[in-house]
Amino acid sequence: MKIAVLGTGMVGNAIATKLINVGHQITMGSRTANSDAGQEWLRGVGGRAHVGTFADAAAFGELVFDCTNGANSLAALRQAGADNLRGKILIQVGNPLDFSKGMPPTLTVCNTDSLGEQTQREFPDVRVVKALNTVNCDIMIAPSRVPGDHELFICGNNAAAKREVTDRLCEWFGWRPGNIIDLGDITNARGTEMFLALWVRLWGVLETPHFNIHVVRGE
Amino acid sequence: MKIAVLGTGMVGNAIATKLINVGHQITMGSRTANSDAGQEWLRGVGGRAHVGTFADAAAFGELVFDCTNGANSLAALRQAGADNLRGKILIQVGNPLDFSKGMPPTLTVCNTDSLGEQTQREFPDVRVVKALNTVNCDIMIAPSRVPGDHELFICGNNAAAKREVTDRLCEWFGWRPGNIIDLGDITNARGTEMFLALWVRLWGVLETPHFNIHVVRGE
Repeated sequence: MKIAVLGTGMVGNAIATKLINVGHQITMGSRTANSDAGQEWLRGVGGRAHVGTFADAAAFGELVFDCTNGANSLAALRQAGADNLRGKILIQVGNPLDFSKGMPPTLTVCNTDSLGEQTQREFPDVRVVKALNTVNCDIMIAPSRVPGDHELFICGNNAAAKREVTDRLCEWFGWRPGNIIDLGDITNARGTEMFLALWVRLWGVLETPHFNIHVVRGE
Repeated sequence: MKIAVLGTGMVGNAIATKLINVGHQITMGSRTANSDAGQEWLRGVGGRAHVGTFADAAAFGELVFDCTNGANSLAALRQAGADNLRGKILIQVGNPLDFSKGMPPTLTVCNTDSLGEQTQREFPDVRVVKALNTVNCDIMIAPSRVPGDHELFICGNNAAAKREVTDRLCEWFGWRPGNIIDLGDITNARGTEMFLALWVRLWGVLETPHFNIHVVRGE
């Protein structure tokens, strides 16, 4: 499959590399066509990998992973272009974290809105699915690094898109279908993005980003 | 032990009843000395139970459980009175949930502040420990209703107070010491209060408030 990965940071790198390794054609997009990070990634993976601008990547991909820094996602998606994204599934992985006020980060938007909702509002013809944003990128692409059952949360307005994303996350990354919890429409991105406020603190206490939560049902 | 339970709602009721059952003397406080909810609770439990105003309860208790509705906690604590609370441990259970804009609720404060911090700032001579606010009241007092390991998060500025609260939650309510995660100072209440945004959505999806999360460490 032809897949766009927007963002050349740790998250984009991890996801693009995993997708190459499971046989897909990837264009990784960044602000400039020849970013250092993109070129370095390209040298590392070879194969069916390309780098380009956000617009190049969005035009190339049948499916789009938005792995941009959440604080800049809307600007990056504008550069990707509504026409290039139209009708496609956009898996939004980033959180609107603001590191400018020190650690732990705050959120640039929360409580009565979310980055997921802002994205869906600004790009109404894109099928936005918020997913993967509650785990570290090493866990996203290799959930077995955390033992036993632990969950991902997805949300979005389009049921078919969520089913396809669920299937892909299982097939490509190794998630178990029963461990992906559909929270409902895109407004539920508030829940998963605001979870980051607890996530970053657990990261500090556990001294590793390699953890996840298991939702345990009681009587 | 003489314990104050502020609030006569579901949470206060569950905690006060449990504390009576494990042998403590309780005064449950509310806005008025003879609230219907307080009187009803009193008829149900008998024994070493009293009801009164927030101030009556705070004056009585050597330890204070703040089980007031988070949106009204500061007002309730003002009625309880700084002099009555001085030097005591206050276990704050409530979250600043705002149901006025419909379901799921939003938070009245979050991201750059929290109810826990507001409380500690306004009552600097009280040892505020934020705890129990990430689970339903039935789970607070009977964690074995959820099978296996699952965690509570506590935070506060006073290490000795957090140790005492941890001991009490284990001894009185049945929590396991290894399942209580100390997140650090009271600013970390942002993390646990903002988790409610995910919690309320999980409640909707799971169709039961009887669940908790287990933090699973990976490689």
